[in-house]
Amino acid sequence: MLIREAAADWQAVWPFFRDICAAGETFTYPLHPSEEEARAMWMPPAPAHVVVAEEAGTVLGTANMYANRSGNGAHVASASYMADPARQGRGTGRALVAYSLGWARAAGFRRIQYNAVVETNAPALALYRDLGFEILGTLPEGFRHPGLGYVGLHSLHRAL
Amino acid sequence: MLIREAAADWQAVWPFFRDICAAGETFTYPLHPSEEEARAMWMPPAPAHVVVAEEAGTVLGTANMYANRSGNGAHVASASYMADPARQGRGTGRALVAYSLGWARAAGFRRIQYNAVVETNAPALALYRDLGFEILGTLPEGFRHPGLGYVGLHSLHRAL
Repeated sequence: MLIREAAADWQAVWPFFRDICAAGETFTYPLHPSEEEARAMWMPPAPAHVVVAEEAGTVLGTANMYANRSGNGAHVASASYMADPARQGRGTGRALVAYSLGWARAAGFRRIQYNAVVETNAPALALYRDLGFEILGTLPEGFRHPGLGYVGLHSLHRAL
Repeated sequence: MLIREAAADWQAVWPFFRDICAAGETFTYPLHPSEEEARAMWMPPAPAHVVVAEEAGTVLGTANMYANRSGNGAHVASASYMADPARQGRGTGRALVAYSLGWARAAGFRRIQYNAVVETNAPALALYRDLGFEILGTLPEGFRHPGLGYVGLHSLHRAL
């Protein structure tokens, strides 16, 4: 699997991005963003960094990474990941997270924080914990899961 | 003291907004934003709500309030407050926080979260605790204080 900077990849990302938003189980994004809104949200300009995971010419997933805050908070990175649900089981998520940790280290960040991880997203949480993240706190009822009702919303972090 | 929706108030806000950013002790904002950048940052369009605290025609402080996230996280509000350091001791911060809680309740939010409160900002923390907020978690070294070095960055929350 190759992780590389996203270029003309939006058309490959948009179908699963749209489906993941519409499912409404894992992101605090609009459920039905326009394609233009979604693209602007997912692919911010540099110094943010946007990549895709590719295998044999097929995009398996994508990630973006950036400073979580500005000014005197700009030494903490954040990142988001999406793997195509139709192409699971290939380690795409793990490869994207590992890549983002390396990117953040190389860019000089001291720490990385995820702001909003749904507490029922067990696969993502297991992966993040395995890669050294700890739960910083959990906002009670921070997320309205379409099937489970109000559930907690974690923030996670780790040093770099 | 009157808390009212901000209208043609930016020119009264900008001098202390600029000074508070430049001091770099309390916000994770750019230290030296352009006036245009600052205005866009502080005065987002509706449904966000921006107010000023005014007494005898003088603006003492300002607050903005909005949904902290989108989609299935949009039932949690957030808010930010700035009081003019040259006009302290009049309860401006307390009045602005209390107003924002009422606004968030009326707008149907279930909870309110502050994402980034510097742990050395004792007056703000004392006020927030007094008004029912609890610390959700503290990002170690989340803020680079200009005088104190790396300090923690709290997230706070309370039900509405």
